Amino acid sequence: MKASVAGIKIGSLKTGEKNCITDVKGVRVGHVTLKENVNADECIRTGVTAILPHSGNPFKEKVPAASYVINGFGKTTGLVQIDELGLLESPILLTNTFCVGNVLQGSLQYMLQENPEIGDTTSSINIVVGECNDSYLNTARLMAVTPEHAIEAIKAASGDKVQEGAVGAGTGTMCFGYKGGIGCASRVVPFNENETYTVGILVQSNFGKKDEFYFDIIKQEDKMERPDGSIMMILATDAPVSDRQLKRLAKRCPIGLGRIGSNIHHGSGDVVVAFSNAATIPHDQKNGKENVHVLREDHPVMSLLFQAVAEATEEAILNSLLQAETTSGRMGRVAERLPENIINVLK
Amino acid sequence: MKASVAGIKIGSLKTGEKNCITDVKGVRVGHVTLKENVNADECIRTGVTAILPHSGNPFKEKVPAASYVINGFGKTTGLVQIDELGLLESPILLTNTFCVGNVLQGSLQYMLQENPEIGDTTSSINIVVGECNDSYLNTARLMAVTPEHAIEAIKAASGDKVQEGAVGAGTGTMCFGYKGGIGCASRVVPFNENETYTVGILVQSNFGKKDEFYFDIIKQEDKMERPDGSIMMILATDAPVSDRQLKRLAKRCPIGLGRIGSNIHHGSGDVVVAFSNAATIPHDQKNGKENVHVLREDHPVMSLLFQAVAEATEEAILNSLLQAETTSGRMGRVAERLPENIINVLK
Amino acid sequence: MKASVAGIKIGSLKTGEKNCITDVKGVRVGHVTLKENVNADECIRTGVTAILPHSGNPFKEKVPAASYVINGFGKTTGLVQIDELGLLESPILLTNTFCVGNVLQGSLQYMLQENPEIGDTTSSINIVVGECNDSYLNTARLMAVTPEHAIEAIKAASGDKVQEGAVGAGTGTMCFGYKGGIGCASRVVPFNENETYTVGILVQSNFGKKDEFYFDIIKQEDKMERPDGSIMMILATDAPVSDRQLKRLAKRCPIGLGRIGSNIHHGSGDVVVAFSNAATIPHDQKNGKENVHVLREDHPVMSLLFQAVAEATEEAILNSLLQAETTSGRMGRVAERLPENIINVLK
Amino acid sequence: MKASVAGIKIGSLKTGEKNCITDVKGVRVGHVTLKENVNADECIRTGVTAILPHSGNPFKEKVPAASYVINGFGKTTGLVQIDELGLLESPILLTNTFCVGNVLQGSLQYMLQENPEIGDTTSSINIVVGECNDSYLNTARLMAVTPEHAIEAIKAASGDKVQEGAVGAGTGTMCFGYKGGIGCASRVVPFNENETYTVGILVQSNFGKKDEFYFDIIKQEDKMERPDGSIMMILATDAPVSDRQLKRLAKRCPIGLGRIGSNIHHGSGDVVVAFSNAATIPHDQKNGKENVHVLREDHPVMSLLFQAVAEATEEAILNSLLQAETTSGRMGRVAERLPENIINVLK
Repeated sequence: MKASVAGIKIGSLKTGEKNCITDVKGVRVGHVTLKENVNADECIRTGVTAILPHSGNPFKEKVPAASYVINGFGKTTGLVQIDELGLLESPILLTNTFCVGNVLQGSLQYMLQENPEIGDTTSSINIVVGECNDSYLNTARLMAVTPEHAIEAIKAASGDKVQEGAVGAGTGTMCFGYKGGIGCASRVVPFNENETYTVGILVQSNFGKKDEFYFDIIKQEDKMERPDGSIMMILATDAPVSDRQLKRLAKRCPIGLGRIGSNIHHGSGDVVVAFSNAATIPHDQKNGKENVHVLREDHPVMSLLFQAVAEATEEAILNSLLQAETTSGRMGRVAERLPENIINVLK
Repeated sequence: MKASVAGIKIGSLKTGEKNCITDVKGVRVGHVTLKENVNADECIRTGVTAILPHSGNPFKEKVPAASYVINGFGKTTGLVQIDELGLLESPILLTNTFCVGNVLQGSLQYMLQENPEIGDTTSSINIVVGECNDSYLNTARLMAVTPEHAIEAIKAASGDKVQEGAVGAGTGTMCFGYKGGIGCASRVVPFNENETYTVGILVQSNFGKKDEFYFDIIKQEDKMERPDGSIMMILATDAPVSDRQLKRLAKRCPIGLGRIGSNIHHGSGDVVVAFSNAATIPHDQKNGKENVHVLREDHPVMSLLFQAVAEATEEAILNSLLQAETTSGRMGRVAERLPENIINVLK
Repeated sequence: MKASVAGIKIGSLKTGEKNCITDVKGVRVGHVTLKENVNADECIRTGVTAILPHSGNPFKEKVPAASYVINGFGKTTGLVQIDELGLLESPILLTNTFCVGNVLQGSLQYMLQENPEIGDTTSSINIVVGECNDSYLNTARLMAVTPEHAIEAIKAASGDKVQEGAVGAGTGTMCFGYKGGIGCASRVVPFNENETYTVGILVQSNFGKKDEFYFDIIKQEDKMERPDGSIMMILATDAPVSDRQLKRLAKRCPIGLGRIGSNIHHGSGDVVVAFSNAATIPHDQKNGKENVHVLREDHPVMSLLFQAVAEATEEAILNSLLQAETTSGRMGRVAERLPENIINVLK
Repeated sequence: MKASVAGIKIGSLKTGEKNCITDVKGVRVGHVTLKENVNADECIRTGVTAILPHSGNPFKEKVPAASYVINGFGKTTGLVQIDELGLLESPILLTNTFCVGNVLQGSLQYMLQENPEIGDTTSSINIVVGECNDSYLNTARLMAVTPEHAIEAIKAASGDKVQEGAVGAGTGTMCFGYKGGIGCASRVVPFNENETYTVGILVQSNFGKKDEFYFDIIKQEDKMERPDGSIMMILATDAPVSDRQLKRLAKRCPIGLGRIGSNIHHGSGDVVVAFSNAATIPHDQKNGKENVHVLREDHPVMSLLFQAVAEATEEAILNSLLQAETTSGRMGRVAERLPENIINVLK
């Protein structure tokens, strides 16, 4: 049950219809979930999640984008070019740390099939792949995610309400010592009488200790020995913002992250990738200039968008917990779902 | 009354003896407070606060330093060189937005007097001046702070418990719609059985609306028309950390900032300047190498230091509110101190 | 005599009419030159140079801007806000290292007089001041430049051919062991059959040793003991480029800097401030969106603009040498003008 | 024939024994070269080059590292973590743009085999893969480089003189319209009477048009239609420099790049990865602190190191041209080697 359904209110802004990143019209999400028990000790608990910025071909119709690295103990690919050009031209893929190469290669293969001119008569393409280390539950050394799984996740993408919890790239991840995974939330802010803008967040949560969770009333000690973990945050909006403005939005994600309890550990790869699909920029040049409408930053809606990012980030993490089921993993380990007594406090 | 005295507990780590940036041994702070009623409409409510990294000459004995710009609607000087060299070689001065030039010139003058070789037989010196826009209460256009005031603040610096609230550079600033100003807090974390490290924060708080304050139970609408405001955060530690590690510490300040209610508005200049005085680097070269002891980042103390930064930032802001007295200002405006009923809730 | 007049050709692109930053229509430049012999040892050889982005009020009509710090041993102010908002809203002032505060304060005073609403009913203003350390010739510790000199330089600004060499902020600076100072150059590139774009550079040159100068045929050892020096580079264009694109342009300045001989010494403050005045962004908000025309980056003109920056930077530095006259300074020091035999080789 | 062998002198500093990146003791380089004619139109002309920072296990013994993105139209992986932690813990791999995923996956596989604790009892590992787009000659869409090729290149690494030109990741790349590829150079600078430091550069050159080459006397028009190209630069040194200082070194690569003729085109991925193997940092923690010796930046050797980087970069690019043989490729295309008359001028 999502926070909003359970009656848990994070912040003061209105949520979108589905309280989901897909409330940003055009955004599509697909999962491939891999669960297999290999032997007594080895288990596959991992997957891929694909986020598409709009319903068209992202190479042919690019979108303004930005990244923000809160803490760079992570292996996300594709940020160099996003930072230089301020554009996203591929799906964003999430997976586990040890399969970034495979997912990169698979997504590229998919995009080459869709765009026969890439690497032939036109330039190359930049692919974005983010990751979390799910090796507490998943035998990551098996490199279970193949290039084909990435293609499958892209093909599975839809604009429906996103499946959350122990699914896709979140199949094996942990959050605050409980089972985490994929979580979404959205916020809607008014621009003027006729127009509203939506901010949607999708997280792959994999960080934190039990006693850091702000809503934990049990305050039990977290004795699990595991690496620091990470969080990938995908920020989508239909507000007409530039790449620079998107970086400003992305810099508000730590606000939500901190409010739910993170202190951003040393070994955490906390990375935001943000895009706006308010308008697209065609790959094929019509003339030498683009005509762009962007928000004025001194308009009050800008600070509302910042607030929307903070609130949606906090709630997306909470939803990743609320929607996750207890999951067993390698070496007999078990990640419990968030206990009922904590959920009751939240309500 | 500080939060810790009032029985308000922020976070779980131990506070330093004075719960103050001066708990970091050697750090000294001095204020110059300017309050004058010029005429019916014009009022001077401003000042200078000087933070010295240690008890010696900061040019002759430099310290590792870093800056982090959370939101750059601000005019802080000196960050270009800190970012390049990772060193602080001057006092850090705080003042109002319209007097940065005067304070820069005055501090330079002071440092030239102390170091006759600067600009003669040795290189130049880099001065750090941060600011907040106190023009809601203060007639900032009068540029009341002179170079001499900067010198006076530096000379007034001591290692005592820092005077907080409507004092020094915080004389005219506002926080969450109430009177803010200077606030401090500190945290102590264990490194091993014999050694602890201290993190101290000093803030000049000048941001936020009433209904953003996380501990506000009144939830009254904030109708004051005023610019977005800012916050300067000075982070001091005696942990032996490098400039790169200091930047990582500084990047945890937004966690505390978010927890107390900030969403980091568009017009906010939210800037962190961080330094460690665990060891100093002499200006005059003995040989061509320095021998440096730095913390390993995979030692658990690193994530404790991150937590210390988050907690101390949150509490320093709270202390800036708790310690500030109701202050009248230009055009008959009044900034009330934090109401008792909110303080009671906090307790 | 400028390089182009002397028949020295740098690069292959066409120069603008004046081969000057003021070839970018609307850009205005003003100097204040201070030369005074105080006593046997102390000399004033310094000044201020003001660059205005267009003929209007830069606060009321802002322009897209970016900075790029090649080497940050420098004290330039105003970059924090330029980096955050991508806007320039003030004149750019150049002076000596020890008078940045005075020039900042004076420029602010000027802008407050022009804009009575700043700090009263509207926000603050961000002032950009760059500097070089001219203390080889100038007794910088005297802090000879006052706030009034900054105002005077702004008021002196015109769109005429810029006076170069030992003038304004270049009065006391050195380049490759000879007298340097202010230098300009421009390049014009075709966009389509009807439209061309101009790139103009103004430098304050103060770096390098004799044997580093690429056109030096004498290869004499440089025995002057002096600090590493710096170079400020102001990049103006009328091409419709965004702040991100301006940063890309600015990142081509090191190409020209390297070609003339710089290896960017440790103690050098090598800073670029870039702006486009193709269109302005009004301070006062009409509605919440701006309609912006920007160049497509895959249009061939983008790489031509990059080339223009490299060529104009190299030539502006050369012009700062060619236009400078032999200048005596403090402690009986003399900075010779570039010798004839080197100039002849150049031709 | 290398530049130094041909009697072509770039700069004034001494070259290392092999004039090669492997002059930095411990650095090892390995190539896998793939050349195959698939059919009339399709050709494989690509490969992998591996650079190992020292003779040990780079995960168990990490080295200080930094990256610098001159122009980010590129897909290099691994920079996020290098920027955060200032450490390299893997080989650096170079390949073509379309095989980054495969090479990443293969290198990871190799490192997992060497380090059974990764992803089991210890953290993850960060792999660095750089690339150039060799699709003018190579049918890149075939994705000819497999994970196994990456492993093979790592295993082939030796400290010998590096094979240059159309080899490894340079098999199919172009430079200034001629055949480019892998090139190396080194410089040795004195620190004191007993100690010298070496800077070594390895480039994968793939940029520029014929008429941009500074030593071109033919000035023929370059009519080949091809994407802008890129250059990867690997900078190795045995000077005891920190990650921040390595970034400063890396920022001098554009100086050499500019001197040989680049204006850094829009579509170019110009990326530097730099490391020092003066000392290593063990993965396994002995105690919580590291004792580090680093160069003082005001020691004259620092500016000499900067000069060494500029000179070695320029010469490494020249060597990539001088050492490359004429290579045919897909669609009947041919990349000629640098013509004799140009080489004669160079001499």
